[in-house]
Amino acid sequence: MQNIFDPHSVAVVGVSPNPDNLGRNIMLNLIDFGFDGIVYGVGPKGGAIATRRIYKSVLDIPDHVDLAVILIPARFVPEVMEECGQKGIRHAIIETAGFREYGEAGRKIEDQLVAVTKKYDIRFVGPNCIGVINMENGFCVPFPRLRPFIRAGEVSIISQSGGVGLAILNHMSGEGIGLNKFVSAGNMLNIDAEELLAYLIADEGTRVIFIYLESIRNGRRLMELARASTKPIMIFKSNIGQMGRSIAASHTASLSNDDRVVDTAFRQCGITRIHDVTTLSNYLKTLKLPPLKGKRLAIISRSGGHAIIAADACEQVGFELAEFPEQFIREIEKHFRASVIKLTNPLDLGDLFDLEVYYRIVDDTLKQENVDGVVFLHTSVAQTDFEMTSILVNRLGELGRTHNKPVAVYISANAEDISRLRAQTDFPVFTHVVETFRGLKLDYEHALLAEKADALEVIPEFSVDKAAVADMIKTAQSENRDLLLDEAVDVLERYGIPTVRGLKATNATEAQQAAENLGFPVAMKIIAEHISHKSDVGGVQLNLRNGRDVADAYADMIRRIRAAYPDAGIDGVLVQPMAVGGRELILGGRQDRQFGPVVLLGLGGIFVEIFEQATLRVAPISAAEARAMVEELHGAQILMGARGSKRFDIEALLDAILRISQLLVDFPQIEELDVNPLRIFHENEGCSALDARIILGRQPA
Amino acid sequence: MQNIFDPHSVAVVGVSPNPDNLGRNIMLNLIDFGFDGIVYGVGPKGGAIATRRIYKSVLDIPDHVDLAVILIPARFVPEVMEECGQKGIRHAIIETAGFREYGEAGRKIEDQLVAVTKKYDIRFVGPNCIGVINMENGFCVPFPRLRPFIRAGEVSIISQSGGVGLAILNHMSGEGIGLNKFVSAGNMLNIDAEELLAYLIADEGTRVIFIYLESIRNGRRLMELARASTKPIMIFKSNIGQMGRSIAASHTASLSNDDRVVDTAFRQCGITRIHDVTTLSNYLKTLKLPPLKGKRLAIISRSGGHAIIAADACEQVGFELAEFPEQFIREIEKHFRASVIKLTNPLDLGDLFDLEVYYRIVDDTLKQENVDGVVFLHTSVAQTDFEMTSILVNRLGELGRTHNKPVAVYISANAEDISRLRAQTDFPVFTHVVETFRGLKLDYEHALLAEKADALEVIPEFSVDKAAVADMIKTAQSENRDLLLDEAVDVLERYGIPTVRGLKATNATEAQQAAENLGFPVAMKIIAEHISHKSDVGGVQLNLRNGRDVADAYADMIRRIRAAYPDAGIDGVLVQPMAVGGRELILGGRQDRQFGPVVLLGLGGIFVEIFEQATLRVAPISAAEARAMVEELHGAQILMGARGSKRFDIEALLDAILRISQLLVDFPQIEELDVNPLRIFHENEGCSALDARIILGRQPA
Repeated sequence: MQNIFDPHSVAVVGVSPNPDNLGRNIMLNLIDFGFDGIVYGVGPKGGAIATRRIYKSVLDIPDHVDLAVILIPARFVPEVMEECGQKGIRHAIIETAGFREYGEAGRKIEDQLVAVTKKYDIRFVGPNCIGVINMENGFCVPFPRLRPFIRAGEVSIISQSGGVGLAILNHMSGEGIGLNKFVSAGNMLNIDAEELLAYLIADEGTRVIFIYLESIRNGRRLMELARASTKPIMIFKSNIGQMGRSIAASHTASLSNDDRVVDTAFRQCGITRIHDVTTLSNYLKTLKLPPLKGKRLAIISRSGGHAIIAADACEQVGFELAEFPEQFIREIEKHFRASVIKLTNPLDLGDLFDLEVYYRIVDDTLKQENVDGVVFLHTSVAQTDFEMTSILVNRLGELGRTHNKPVAVYISANAEDISRLRAQTDFPVFTHVVETFRGLKLDYEHALLAEKADALEVIPEFSVDKAAVADMIKTAQSENRDLLLDEAVDVLERYGIPTVRGLKATNATEAQQAAENLGFPVAMKIIAEHISHKSDVGGVQLNLRNGRDVADAYADMIRRIRAAYPDAGIDGVLVQPMAVGGRELILGGRQDRQFGPVVLLGLGGIFVEIFEQATLRVAPISAAEARAMVEELHGAQILMGARGSKRFDIEALLDAILRISQLLVDFPQIEELDVNPLRIFHENEGCSALDARIILGRQPA
Repeated sequence: MQNIFDPHSVAVVGVSPNPDNLGRNIMLNLIDFGFDGIVYGVGPKGGAIATRRIYKSVLDIPDHVDLAVILIPARFVPEVMEECGQKGIRHAIIETAGFREYGEAGRKIEDQLVAVTKKYDIRFVGPNCIGVINMENGFCVPFPRLRPFIRAGEVSIISQSGGVGLAILNHMSGEGIGLNKFVSAGNMLNIDAEELLAYLIADEGTRVIFIYLESIRNGRRLMELARASTKPIMIFKSNIGQMGRSIAASHTASLSNDDRVVDTAFRQCGITRIHDVTTLSNYLKTLKLPPLKGKRLAIISRSGGHAIIAADACEQVGFELAEFPEQFIREIEKHFRASVIKLTNPLDLGDLFDLEVYYRIVDDTLKQENVDGVVFLHTSVAQTDFEMTSILVNRLGELGRTHNKPVAVYISANAEDISRLRAQTDFPVFTHVVETFRGLKLDYEHALLAEKADALEVIPEFSVDKAAVADMIKTAQSENRDLLLDEAVDVLERYGIPTVRGLKATNATEAQQAAENLGFPVAMKIIAEHISHKSDVGGVQLNLRNGRDVADAYADMIRRIRAAYPDAGIDGVLVQPMAVGGRELILGGRQDRQFGPVVLLGLGGIFVEIFEQATLRVAPISAAEARAMVEELHGAQILMGARGSKRFDIEALLDAILRISQLLVDFPQIEELDVNPLRIFHENEGCSALDARIILGRQPA
């Protein structure tokens, strides 16, 4: 991989002297960015470019070549790769488009390309990409003509889309954020995003990693890499809408669409998800600041209006204004003319204009134990002295490092002055008040995440009857069906999840008998294959109070099911005692294509229907994660005993969540699992699965 | 007011030749901005500036002066205003700070200032402001030294804070948005924001009005002005946090803090509330586009990645992707090489690079009936031809106007190129994908708002027993107390709001008798002064099932209340039949200091406690507004009969809301009113106030 980012000698294939030629752009970019290796131009017509010979084939190049950069029509690519192989080139960046994404013809060329690269063991980035930039050695091979527009820095970028990647570089440049390495991954036919990520995690020059992805290939691998990384990783994952549009067959499926899984998976492994470029900029700036370890901020402002807006923003993002102790106020009072300004937080500097005094006030403020960070709002007055401001900004940065507390600097000035200032200082400058606080919020969350990542997470392992479940699943799969209601309930039992034990009945008399044995009132549920929403077709009857009700309900149920599903094989009904009291939850899970087993927990009934309250985790999950799931349920206060009401049996719920997690990990054959409702009772009274559905993945024929 | 923005002759008071002098900055700003009137410098030391004489007093100026701009130490201001009065100057802009905001000494100077301006009937802006800019005549008097940094345009600005006002001008300038008039209102001692707004609404050059406010003086007047305005008005109202911190005595008060009232008041009168500068920029850009009259957009993108991000953003803000009809696809197919690109919405232009073709595709797309607007995403390739891009952008703008549908243009390029482009075109350019869609969302909402503002709103008037309520309130006020429980219930009855009629009892035997007359079970509630949360101290007993329960409850209740409130005058208890069925709501209202009577509706019980679901309106409200209140309640689906459940009696609820509105308007003496719960029953079964509290405003002694 070293040869992709740091080659000694490069052949650019597809170069001609024509000013419209894109290969020519690549050559000129390498020259302008000051690439420290050797570059050879290759093009079928030969000629010269920038006083260098253009070779007609890589085979003509007299020296060894580490890397080929290819930008020629797709149909010629396999042939050129053959030549590269013969030449001993083992790495390539293929920028050419027109493969799989252009239909059948492209797919054939792609197959040839794969064959020849396999033959010579050539590793390559692309195709359909805009290549690589490495600011450390001036290696810059995107085909758009670029002047050195971005400063060198610590952020490295992997972008699936070249256009989006360049747009992000433009934004970074505008915000004064420096780049280390950039790679446009394109179709990822050979080297994929996960492999590039592994490289950058190990790469010395890279301190922060940003990835733009439209699809995730291997979610589990991504999570593993991120978990092991000590560098902050941010991912902008787009393509949300189309995924969400898949039709959902169960509550669990509808409440855990792929994008929600991406969200939770990223959070679980410490990846920060980004949804827009503004947030990315805030994050990249923030990571240059010391960690914000608490929520108490001091706001120091040159404009009273800005102080007010800042105080609003502070509250809005969930921070607090630190209280200034009396002694501290008397200290800073010395800097002001008497009785002119009310010394509070936010601190309005009024018409005090002395950068040295500003510096000392910020220093004094950072010394306060109850101040976790400072926001300094600087607005230009009259002929702003930008040299002075630039010095102040850099000194404020130093102060932050000295005290190991962040100082976030907001500056209001015209765009031109801001650009000049950013060119003069490496310290981040914010230009929107609310973004300044959002930036600090990211800093705070990142500090928390880093702390959490250090904590060891133990995944509990319960003793369960795995073999019995394996048998049931095997049988069902051999009969090409899902588990029946009574089987699903049995699976839960064997994994230690309490259920309402019921009795199976295959005719009205048996049902009556079962009800009498269990005691009235009872519930009756159909046991049948291929009926996904049994309550919608009358397959669930609740509160049956006597034998006659049971017999009538049985007859009615069978009749309705036969009418709705003439071909459904009916296995009978399950008669259960009615559960009394408690609250209903939904506990479920499913296999996600990218991330594997996922567990879902939601409040039941009206909450899940109207408010869509649910929370997910990629399994296996730790006890701490299970508890976090319960706590982050909007409305969980009810379970915890809010407003003096009785607390529910949270421990039993946690146990059930962790056992479901183990079940889903043990059996990837379980495509979807829905315990709906799971009824939770008051403290020490446990919980109970009232209904269960288990849908199996179709085995390949 | 004409003299404030468009004076013929101006005296700048406080000028000296010293380069640090701020009055000098004002003179130079007027010169640089090309002011088309006559300017006189005034300063005690005389001298010259920019080849003009500095007069020692306004009295020395040989000609008539329309306006004085004052920037001298506060203690000299009253004296100078006296001279201005003698000179016949009737308008001033006082930029000096150091009045009321600097304590007692400042307040005294302020009183003198008020006296002298009253004497001569001088109208003035300020003090404590940075003055006025009028781009139409080059009148520019802020004291920071400004070069003409912003283009002339149609947006006028009133800012309570000078610093924030300038920051906004900086942002507008960076985004290429033009200014018409700017005024920093400062302390608003004489001319206030409402008066300035009235002027700008009538002003010919102003097409869009933006206001930054930290406090609202006269909310009702603001609403009147906005209702009568045909120009879009945007307000950034800050100072949210401190207001929200006021301690709330009732549910209604806690759920209707001042800032929520500002929100609803603005919405009711068509003011768009802004919370950050990014949204302001989006809005100002958007208002240059034709109205977006539907939600169906077409996305046309030069980069596949941007197309995907745009599709996500489109869905995120609630828009739809228009479906392209087969015939249309065949039409645009002609512009592409065969089988290269999948022609869908979003449309990826791939490697097609022909601005003329882009233009024709956008034209064709706008012609589609099912397309309400177009988002065009332009990313720079190679040597971007900015002349060409600039022409394209302007032509796309024309296309939008021709079809009367918005074309929002996003451009990805480096900051410098974007600035150049913005300088070359008056058409708005977006640089963040998601902001492009948020901008269109604002356009869409503005079109809706404009439509709604045209609709006539009728405020219903019910026949009620106003005199009886007036008597009750008068009596209570004369006794310096709030209304008692039975009186509050009576007030509701006399305003036609159904209540659970109860019987008052003053001892256990009476209570028992009352319960027997009403029929068991009953509820019993204390009637006592000065007990704000009666259920917290045992003043409410529900579900009393027999005479003995009632007698016990009575004794218990009196004992508890005596213990909790030894000084409370207990008037007895109210015995009510228990209400069965239905759902609980909270209906209430209060007097807001800025906006007057406000009505609140919330879902009761757990919803209001955990989810804080409530909605407000400034009274009086129309039937349509009342209906909107019910509809916007999160969870209102339950009332409407969601998922096949029975619909509740919405008509009865609307009636109750409107009657409460009338009650609050009729009696500003009612400080707070809480109907909690209001129980709503199924369709045609009405609703009923189960409990009521009415708190009266304290009359001035």
